[in-house]
Amino acid sequence: MSLEILGVEGIGEVRPGDDLAALIVAEAGPDKLRDRDCVVVTQKAVSKAEGRLVVIDPDDPTSHKPLVEAESVRVLRRRGDLVISETVHGFVCANAGVDLSNVDEGYAALLPLDSDRSARRIRDRIRALTGIEAAVVVSDTFGRPWRRGVTDTAIGCAGIAAVVDLRGTTDALGRELKVTEVALVDEIAAAADLVMGKSKGIPAAIVRGLDEAWFRTGSVREEIVRPPADDLFR
Amino acid sequence: MSLEILGVEGIGEVRPGDDLAALIVAEAGPDKLRDRDCVVVTQKAVSKAEGRLVVIDPDDPTSHKPLVEAESVRVLRRRGDLVISETVHGFVCANAGVDLSNVDEGYAALLPLDSDRSARRIRDRIRALTGIEAAVVVSDTFGRPWRRGVTDTAIGCAGIAAVVDLRGTTDALGRELKVTEVALVDEIAAAADLVMGKSKGIPAAIVRGLDEAWFRTGSVREEIVRPPADDLFR
Repeated sequence: MSLEILGVEGIGEVRPGDDLAALIVAEAGPDKLRDRDCVVVTQKAVSKAEGRLVVIDPDDPTSHKPLVEAESVRVLRRRGDLVISETVHGFVCANAGVDLSNVDEGYAALLPLDSDRSARRIRDRIRALTGIEAAVVVSDTFGRPWRRGVTDTAIGCAGIAAVVDLRGTTDALGRELKVTEVALVDEIAAAADLVMGKSKGIPAAIVRGLDEAWFRTGSVREEIVRPPADDLFR
Repeated sequence: MSLEILGVEGIGEVRPGDDLAALIVAEAGPDKLRDRDCVVVTQKAVSKAEGRLVVIDPDDPTSHKPLVEAESVRVLRRRGDLVISETVHGFVCANAGVDLSNVDEGYAALLPLDSDRSARRIRDRIRALTGIEAAVVVSDTFGRPWRRGVTDTAIGCAGIAAVVDLRGTTDALGRELKVTEVALVDEIAAAADLVMGKSKGIPAAIVRGLDEAWFRTGSVREEIVRPPADDLFR
């Protein structure tokens, strides 16, 4: 089994109202997008296209803070300027996903209102433009407790299982596996980041060669966001 | 930029004392391994080859528990049978990495004593066998707080940066990026899992096409394990 990950280069700066699916289709080339490709798009590109930009005072380093509070439903930790909170979407991340990097000065980007819906819209638009059945994952860059460094993670998906449940299947020695719910779309988002980088301005990548069985209706919000009551760390 | 991920099939069951590097080289084929390939090997395969297997009573479902206690330096949470603890290596994971799946009945697999060293040994042995300068990542499957599902994560590496520090470089709009320490080897481990699966018995994968600048001396323990004092969730 093998997999290919292709950066979609040449999209350039995404602006509010841009048709992101059309940009991806154009830059992926006429025969470059295929059925069962998984298109990974960064949150930043999606938020810009959806106009999730808020004017802030570029001379006031605290001007994004009210946005962080507004986007948070629960603050887990504060240290200095850093806030780790649960967002209105149920994600736990730094500064509620409010982001000033790779955004024009004087603006902050907020997370999409519903990233699963964002993914569905891009998927539907790719189908309308090309007839191709692609899956879509919206990725964002999150830190983690206990480990240094950030990794890309899925905040929305469409046309692909967010979690692949291998419970009840057998391991290589024929015994039943117990806990093997793999967060498939998080692994896909991480893989795509290897070609997107952080400073290369590549807002999308194509992951090709994923298991056919993984292509179905999926939702990060329903499958991956862990209800607080199930969580040992909230 | 593009990336290829190739599963190394045909290795079969790994036994204590097996020369894992030789098995990978053999199954990757004579011209399949190249300079600057990154070979990802599962912890399970490494632990088996290194003989990190302990006899347990297969009829006693609690017989691995003393092992979990012995491998833990600090318990973070307990719920029912689940223990989330910090291991002697500094990893925070379920059951201190003590694992009964994909191991012969009557045995439990422990984490390698030093997974960075395990990675270095495999890297050195690949070089000795083939003359090829490959990087090596040892991966394991960890859960995360706040999100359902497990993902593969790096517990050791050699010949590749564990963390790529993009602080001080500029974003696509020319401004300085603030926090962009990317946990490169964790993204590589997650990507490799997309071809290894959990039940297919593929203990290794080759990631080809990574940025040349990322190939240097690296260490998961030194670069990724976060000291408890820096951690907001311990």
